[in-house]
Amino acid sequence: MSPLVLLDYAAVVIFALTGALVASRAQLDVVGFAFLACLTAVGGGTTRDLLLDRHPVFWIAEPTYLGIACAAALLVFFTAHRLESRAKAILWLDAAALSVAVAAGSSIAQAEGAAWGVVLVMGVMTGCLGGLLRDVVANEVPLLLKQGEPYATCALGGALALLVAGWLGLPPFAAALVCAGATFALRASALALGWGIPVYKSRPPRH
Amino acid sequence: MSPLVLLDYAAVVIFALTGALVASRAQLDVVGFAFLACLTAVGGGTTRDLLLDRHPVFWIAEPTYLGIACAAALLVFFTAHRLESRAKAILWLDAAALSVAVAAGSSIAQAEGAAWGVVLVMGVMTGCLGGLLRDVVANEVPLLLKQGEPYATCALGGALALLVAGWLGLPPFAAALVCAGATFALRASALALGWGIPVYKSRPPRH
Amino acid sequence: MSPLVLLDYAAVVIFALTGALVASRAQLDVVGFAFLACLTAVGGGTTRDLLLDRHPVFWIAEPTYLGIACAAALLVFFTAHRLESRAKAILWLDAAALSVAVAAGSSIAQAEGAAWGVVLVMGVMTGCLGGLLRDVVANEVPLLLKQGEPYATCALGGALALLVAGWLGLPPFAAALVCAGATFALRASALALGWGIPVYKSRPPRH
Repeated sequence: MSPLVLLDYAAVVIFALTGALVASRAQLDVVGFAFLACLTAVGGGTTRDLLLDRHPVFWIAEPTYLGIACAAALLVFFTAHRLESRAKAILWLDAAALSVAVAAGSSIAQAEGAAWGVVLVMGVMTGCLGGLLRDVVANEVPLLLKQGEPYATCALGGALALLVAGWLGLPPFAAALVCAGATFALRASALALGWGIPVYKSRPPRH
Repeated sequence: MSPLVLLDYAAVVIFALTGALVASRAQLDVVGFAFLACLTAVGGGTTRDLLLDRHPVFWIAEPTYLGIACAAALLVFFTAHRLESRAKAILWLDAAALSVAVAAGSSIAQAEGAAWGVVLVMGVMTGCLGGLLRDVVANEVPLLLKQGEPYATCALGGALALLVAGWLGLPPFAAALVCAGATFALRASALALGWGIPVYKSRPPRH
Repeated sequence: MSPLVLLDYAAVVIFALTGALVASRAQLDVVGFAFLACLTAVGGGTTRDLLLDRHPVFWIAEPTYLGIACAAALLVFFTAHRLESRAKAILWLDAAALSVAVAAGSSIAQAEGAAWGVVLVMGVMTGCLGGLLRDVVANEVPLLLKQGEPYATCALGGALALLVAGWLGLPPFAAALVCAGATFALRASALALGWGIPVYKSRPPRH
């Protein structure tokens, strides 16, 4: 098993947890939990595989991924009431999932020999799509679109870190870890410290 | 023509009817009816074909599907005002479409030699995606997410029935019919009798 | 470079501008602008390429597309406050993007030898999907669904014009220009003159 596969597993577990937590806020039944957990868990990676024409898609080749996502959904179904604040848990788990998924997406694009611009896009996209699908389907405001909370920016920073690490000569798996670390550091500091990059502000009298 | 193809045709017709009925609630024009009917009709099966790398996609190989969906849209455009309650018609037609689509999705995955976990997922996904796309695009609350109304659960039950029928030695088409029957029986009884499996309930003071 | 490729470039630039303008209404940061611009710019064409099994997908083969979309996003980020009305700019740019994308989608489907029904669908879909994704992700009411404002209808008219031009013996690029012109003329006259085709109206006492 290639070490990069570990990243896909980690992203699936953590995204599944966030999907199930969102399902708990929508008060779905247990199969609804599993559905939203699976959608969130494999959404980004599936799009990546389709775009890069990698067949079979990762969870068709290895259905264990789905089993893991369902197990995570079950776990949340029976334990979510113990959490102090599900909203906070979703935010932080999502940050972790984003980090791992950006690393998985950009590393795999790089391993497929994609151009650096495509590596960046695949990283940002794999990272953001799972959560975006989850939020669109569950009718929540996507984290990606919350004003003044950097999200795609953190993913982009992480994917850039992967490229830099590669140019500095690090082996792929080390570069992926650097990428995940950088993404998480950016996102966590944005959540904890409230930094942001300038958002667009229209002048008052315009609309 | 393989008998399994009949399931795709039936799913396309019934889903197209639900898409057009949703379009009538949004008061679209006749091309909007056709667009939403086609999206609903081929959304689930298209995703299935892309994921399983079946090319050409079923409605590209056989554009008749689109003609049928458009005909269904036209029919609804001129007759929907005769319905007592479009909301009720949508619910019941959707139940029928779900049943046929679950059967089509899981049978085809099985015919492609997918693992049993993938067969279940393809069944649930093909069944749920058409309606989910329809509701997300038309800004309605997805049926999938209505509290206390089993939806994905019924699809899963039907896909399980297909696997069991296969293990009992039934030929593929008979197994598909068992699957469609089981899905419809589950969904119809949920609609008529209001049964449900336990939904997640947070304790009152938490949020 | 085939002249048809020019259509893809033009559609990418104009759709990216509309995506960035929608991002400005949601007050995203600059990476959010780039994300929404890229999603809108390549959404329709990507779906077309996946459905027709054209690999690599156009922006993976030629990442310049993404650079162009990001440049358009930057331009809007720094200049959108100069616009009198962003809502109006979005409407008219979207009309231009729709026209070019319908031409790109239907021409490429025709060049791949698709049946005429598929050519129509690919034209309408490539045209409508970029804007639909943009609006669904940004939580705006899709232009496609605005009552009494023909949208898919204009796309369909343009795609029909392409088929007719082809049957009259025009070369592909000329037919594509006819298609783009017809789509824009239809959409622009709908916006300016407020014409529409009959929408569905339920009788008052029904629901």
